[in-house]
Amino acid sequence: MIPTPYLLFLGDAPDQLAAKVAQGIRDWRPEFALGQYRMDGCRADLGLPDMSLAEARAAGARTLVIGVANRGGVISQAWKDVLHAALEQGFDLASGLHNLLRDEPDLVATAERHGRRLHDVRVPAVKYPIANGVKRSGRRCLAVGSDCSVGKMYTALCLEREMRARGMKATFRATGQTGILIAGDGVPLDAVIADFMAGSIEWLTPDNDPDHWDLIEGQGSLFHVSYSGVTLALIHGGQPDALVLCHEPTRTHMRGLPGYGLPTLEQVRDSALEMARIANPACVAVGCSINTQHLPEAEARRYLEETEARMGLPATDPFRFGAGRLVDALAAL
Amino acid sequence: MIPTPYLLFLGDAPDQLAAKVAQGIRDWRPEFALGQYRMDGCRADLGLPDMSLAEARAAGARTLVIGVANRGGVISQAWKDVLHAALEQGFDLASGLHNLLRDEPDLVATAERHGRRLHDVRVPAVKYPIANGVKRSGRRCLAVGSDCSVGKMYTALCLEREMRARGMKATFRATGQTGILIAGDGVPLDAVIADFMAGSIEWLTPDNDPDHWDLIEGQGSLFHVSYSGVTLALIHGGQPDALVLCHEPTRTHMRGLPGYGLPTLEQVRDSALEMARIANPACVAVGCSINTQHLPEAEARRYLEETEARMGLPATDPFRFGAGRLVDALAAL
Repeated sequence: MIPTPYLLFLGDAPDQLAAKVAQGIRDWRPEFALGQYRMDGCRADLGLPDMSLAEARAAGARTLVIGVANRGGVISQAWKDVLHAALEQGFDLASGLHNLLRDEPDLVATAERHGRRLHDVRVPAVKYPIANGVKRSGRRCLAVGSDCSVGKMYTALCLEREMRARGMKATFRATGQTGILIAGDGVPLDAVIADFMAGSIEWLTPDNDPDHWDLIEGQGSLFHVSYSGVTLALIHGGQPDALVLCHEPTRTHMRGLPGYGLPTLEQVRDSALEMARIANPACVAVGCSINTQHLPEAEARRYLEETEARMGLPATDPFRFGAGRLVDALAAL
Repeated sequence: MIPTPYLLFLGDAPDQLAAKVAQGIRDWRPEFALGQYRMDGCRADLGLPDMSLAEARAAGARTLVIGVANRGGVISQAWKDVLHAALEQGFDLASGLHNLLRDEPDLVATAERHGRRLHDVRVPAVKYPIANGVKRSGRRCLAVGSDCSVGKMYTALCLEREMRARGMKATFRATGQTGILIAGDGVPLDAVIADFMAGSIEWLTPDNDPDHWDLIEGQGSLFHVSYSGVTLALIHGGQPDALVLCHEPTRTHMRGLPGYGLPTLEQVRDSALEMARIANPACVAVGCSINTQHLPEAEARRYLEETEARMGLPATDPFRFGAGRLVDALAAL
């Protein structure tokens, strides 16, 4: 668990997109996002108070989160003075970069000297069990996709926000690096050892109140040959009661696989349900979450109507048009 | 790659079953199995010449393979004198035990002093790529199962032996610890990091002659919720042209999962084919490999006939009755 709240480090981000991780935290966990730290030349702005390390500490910040990615995902030497000073002033550091904090001997030394921790969310911090398949109490919804990067994390976060707004018990369960920084904990599933993948998801979504919903961030796709095994482990470890089918309608081929076309939503529904019912025979598909960011509004609405009629399931872009109808369907289960 | 031939170390094996790994090497790679090394009290016997370390070295042995498992899979202190002496006399050591050779500082020191290598086949020795899904030349057959431990490794090995006897080009591709010790190399798939599972299988089964068959050892089952993700990565990384459906008819529930019944062979066929055709649309199921070890012969033959009629595919126990009809089906593709 990463101590909250955070000071979000934007460093020397060349543009807003480079601060995407920080933006995700600010959008989805505003209560964790106390302020931003920008270096000279930073061209990103989250609209949060600019704070010095001392100001943020005084305001209660406990972790400096590296919310910026530069080319190659490395820890820039230009950031080092700030990172050392943060450790000296009592901050933990958290990062989702490929290049790990723990592989920087100078940061390790400073952290040890000051009793602070380095949180590399890209690598598992837990020894996960092997999945036992035992039915758990509480309810679970998993976002499954036609492809990678079609909006599964945003879908789960939108569902959580809408459920909480209605006073329902709901927890977003992060399975990727950005999701973990947003939630403060989770399982970096793509970095888990094969034998423990499904077990890590059982661990992440334990027994809970009968009316509590785990909203599980999906990964990959059953139809993406590079990562499909990760997806199936999520489906079997998560034991979902409900699937939300995620799709991006302008994609012309599977991400990173030019030779592979996308499956239809019907294929996603059928394959995912068939596999999900091995672990939970009662699993159903409750709706479609369509990422319409590349469609003008009228076209987006037309696509949603057509999808809804074809699939016989509520279809929405939960980020653009709200997750209400998906939550209606989940609440009605 | 583990240097061959081997001297098979049986240590103080309390019974024949404890030497199962050595037995597998002796059965499937007799050309690697130069002799056996037994300590006082050893109750296993492979029917190989008993050799001292010096005799085996003189006969050309290059690696001492720990072919015995004791309770907990640990490296027994009682073995240590022999293991040190082997390193001193020029042997590499190879082991598939949970407890790694490399985690024994005394063995590491002796190996370094004598320039020998410690081969822990339980952990990957290669940095595998992420799968790219590009179609490879050559042909591939994958054993898929209704459950774990139903005979997928033996099936692949039987197919290899029969193909080689017919002069066909064929290579067993190991994906588990015992298979790797038998073959001398392979991928310990259950220990691979999630993101690289499918890529490790692409690496294991590269472009080859158009008439060459890779016979890929299966792992887990799409229907086994603890390990299904590993199975799907094999299906998508392996791009099989042909599936052999493996089953053990006396199993009453999924291995280690008392609450889960076994799928039918029809379900295994349908789910595995549907997934396999994402990576290779031409994939077909060619036959059924039934592990009849717990059935008397008449009952076994009846079961095979019934299965063959029901599935419309050749059904055999390749270890008990030969793999000929399965190879006929593969050769006819």
